[in-house]
Amino acid sequence: MTIGIGLLGLGTVGAGVAGILASPGGRHPLVGELELRRVAVRDPQRPRALELPAELLCTDANAVVDDPAVDIVVEVMGGLEPARSLILRAIAAGKPVVTANKAVIARYGQEIAAAAAAKGVYVLIEAAVGGGIPIIEPLKQSLGANRIQRVSGIINGTTNYILSRMAAEGAAYAEVLADAQRLGYAEADPAADVQGGDAADKIAILSGLAYGGPIERAAIPTEGIDRLDARDVAYAAQLGYVVKLLAVAQHLGSANQEGGDCQLLDVRVHPTLLPKQHPLAGVHGVNNAILVEGDPVGQVMFYGPGAGAGPTASAVVADILNIAGIQHVSGNQLQAPLDPLLAANSWRPCRLVDSSFTSHRNYVRLQTSDQPGVIGKIGTCFGEAGVSIQSIMQFEQTGGALGAGLQGLAPADAEIVVITHEVSEARFRAALTEIAALEEVAAVAACLRTL
Amino acid sequence: MTIGIGLLGLGTVGAGVAGILASPGGRHPLVGELELRRVAVRDPQRPRALELPAELLCTDANAVVDDPAVDIVVEVMGGLEPARSLILRAIAAGKPVVTANKAVIARYGQEIAAAAAAKGVYVLIEAAVGGGIPIIEPLKQSLGANRIQRVSGIINGTTNYILSRMAAEGAAYAEVLADAQRLGYAEADPAADVQGGDAADKIAILSGLAYGGPIERAAIPTEGIDRLDARDVAYAAQLGYVVKLLAVAQHLGSANQEGGDCQLLDVRVHPTLLPKQHPLAGVHGVNNAILVEGDPVGQVMFYGPGAGAGPTASAVVADILNIAGIQHVSGNQLQAPLDPLLAANSWRPCRLVDSSFTSHRNYVRLQTSDQPGVIGKIGTCFGEAGVSIQSIMQFEQTGGALGAGLQGLAPADAEIVVITHEVSEARFRAALTEIAALEEVAAVAACLRTL
Repeated sequence: MTIGIGLLGLGTVGAGVAGILASPGGRHPLVGELELRRVAVRDPQRPRALELPAELLCTDANAVVDDPAVDIVVEVMGGLEPARSLILRAIAAGKPVVTANKAVIARYGQEIAAAAAAKGVYVLIEAAVGGGIPIIEPLKQSLGANRIQRVSGIINGTTNYILSRMAAEGAAYAEVLADAQRLGYAEADPAADVQGGDAADKIAILSGLAYGGPIERAAIPTEGIDRLDARDVAYAAQLGYVVKLLAVAQHLGSANQEGGDCQLLDVRVHPTLLPKQHPLAGVHGVNNAILVEGDPVGQVMFYGPGAGAGPTASAVVADILNIAGIQHVSGNQLQAPLDPLLAANSWRPCRLVDSSFTSHRNYVRLQTSDQPGVIGKIGTCFGEAGVSIQSIMQFEQTGGALGAGLQGLAPADAEIVVITHEVSEARFRAALTEIAALEEVAAVAACLRTL
Repeated sequence: MTIGIGLLGLGTVGAGVAGILASPGGRHPLVGELELRRVAVRDPQRPRALELPAELLCTDANAVVDDPAVDIVVEVMGGLEPARSLILRAIAAGKPVVTANKAVIARYGQEIAAAAAAKGVYVLIEAAVGGGIPIIEPLKQSLGANRIQRVSGIINGTTNYILSRMAAEGAAYAEVLADAQRLGYAEADPAADVQGGDAADKIAILSGLAYGGPIERAAIPTEGIDRLDARDVAYAAQLGYVVKLLAVAQHLGSANQEGGDCQLLDVRVHPTLLPKQHPLAGVHGVNNAILVEGDPVGQVMFYGPGAGAGPTASAVVADILNIAGIQHVSGNQLQAPLDPLLAANSWRPCRLVDSSFTSHRNYVRLQTSDQPGVIGKIGTCFGEAGVSIQSIMQFEQTGGALGAGLQGLAPADAEIVVITHEVSEARFRAALTEIAALEEVAAVAACLRTL
């Protein structure tokens, strides 16, 4: 049995996929059953590292999808359109789809899933999150016995690279970003990475699988690292924390809604302080890691390269293999029922709760005049609002801890860092408003969630 | 569609599985299609935390396997027999099997796989390695596009607990073992754990899947932690290393054998020095982690609880779900072809090479007389044998580094620790024999592999 593959896009990932298909030796023998039959490219004349027969290349992506020799459509062109339309076109033709396109899946996942379910074809997306790390399949299959409590991940390599270097070198964000762009770790337009949008796409996908229902991508509160001050990274380190851009999807409970149970979720992306012993704290550079907490499994973590041609192509071909493997079971019948684990259709409604109803720990940096009693006043404000404090420290501008109440600096030089215990966002915000109004407090300079 | 489950054993893991099946709410909806129909126990009268209807329990395991209401047989009784015979009996009856029994699979995996292939049934073993960590399925499916270069893991929680405490407290092996036994982290007879046999069972299974061929379990060189000296753990720490019981399966190449290619592997279990920055170095306590290195994926790591009722039951039920999911595809036909990824049959021969042909780095501790020139003589011996040295240090018995040539201690007090660069085992052993014969060297007190 040979299975015809049609490739939409021959960029980094597409070339990686073609390279694997062209060299099946030493891989799973099922790879040898896959045959690259047609490839859509923008410019067939462009020189490429991987030589493909000229007759495989064409510029009409629709023709690749429609080609009767193409059994599985692999979309690795990226971008929203025409990727979305091509995926839907393949589904309409009854052809299973493998895609690495997190942006399309995060935004049009429901539309695509509905079309796929109606036609009875698979749309597999292992490469859309975490590059080569197997995380989609574990959430769909290996962890299916669990009630998932939380999924938290470092799922954007560019920002983790920048944060790792900021922590190691004490360097400023803008400086490291410029260097990352020069080295090819960040794109010329870094917005999707540094503002958190890419991570939000990915946590929308992961939480949809973990909790069994579609997640409204646009409703995910998202904060990037582009306004992060090197000082907060340094203070966090002194207090035993590292700062990571964390994407988190937490299960809060369920609510009765129109007769059925609706899962209440807190899904968000923001720079977060992690204790240095936390399993995700040791994830450096462009690596990704996803921590899944469930009952009864406990904590399991998946770690590896979150991007790159090789890792992403590994995930794309894994999905192709899964479809090929299942076709063995159905005897290659096009109309066989789907494996419900692999198909991963939604099975219950999910809803994001407003952040003000969630509780968490906080790191706050305040710029204050350096007068005796400031720490006392701040502590009193938090205390009266019912916000319990874990630590409160005064720092010089240069970053050294002074301890409370030390004298002799110019008033503008004092910075006070507070780490709270877990508190509801509403209560915390109320306390912060009062503190900001204190005459000794010049500014609330930074506010970061803390695990 | 409801699928009948027969459970062989109702110990920790069995009770965990029964607990999941009894409470499907919030888990994947496919769990709701599973029904526990019969359970084999040794003593039906024994009080249990989980109440099961009395009519489900019986003492005749064969009757559970033979029961026509049982569609999938779940073996969680442990031990070699009757577990092996019951698995074969289920296969002969055409019933898929899920087992957590690493000892049976490591020893009788080939016999069981052959029987399963002949009958066209699945034997799934996610719970046999790494407890709740999804590692079997990624090796079978998600990483199938890769040429696997190395699998290395901390896959025995008991020894990792002991080593973590030895490192943290500077405590002796026997002392920590006794405490671990008191706390239930080590069994009364700890041999299988501390002598490395359990880890060898597991790496036999992992390497069989990673490289696609059966691995001769009895041929795996295995060294435990039961003769590990606390001093070596302390010295390693001072040199920037941690000591872990590592199970490693490395691909060395292939050789022509009877007309076909045979994969040459170096599979072994032994205490190993890992640099503190190594991804596996941060795995503490009873946790497990498996690092897989492949082309093109690079390094991916899987981390989590390696044992325990909940995690292991999570893996067992994942396997049951996989079989249930596939049965949807085949329309519950008993004679449907198998998914070759899930079935994971061998597809090429593998052979373990003799350790003397492998190369690696080494840590050696020598007891020497403390005379000027000893370090020079040792260095010369290694140098003349072509063994390149990374570092050579003299320690007091109490563990402090003295540096080379320091005077004033009693001769018996000197210890010299050498870390070599990568060298062939044969060449290293030859050099060590010469060094042991030096009159200044009282003993080769320890010798550990080093990553």
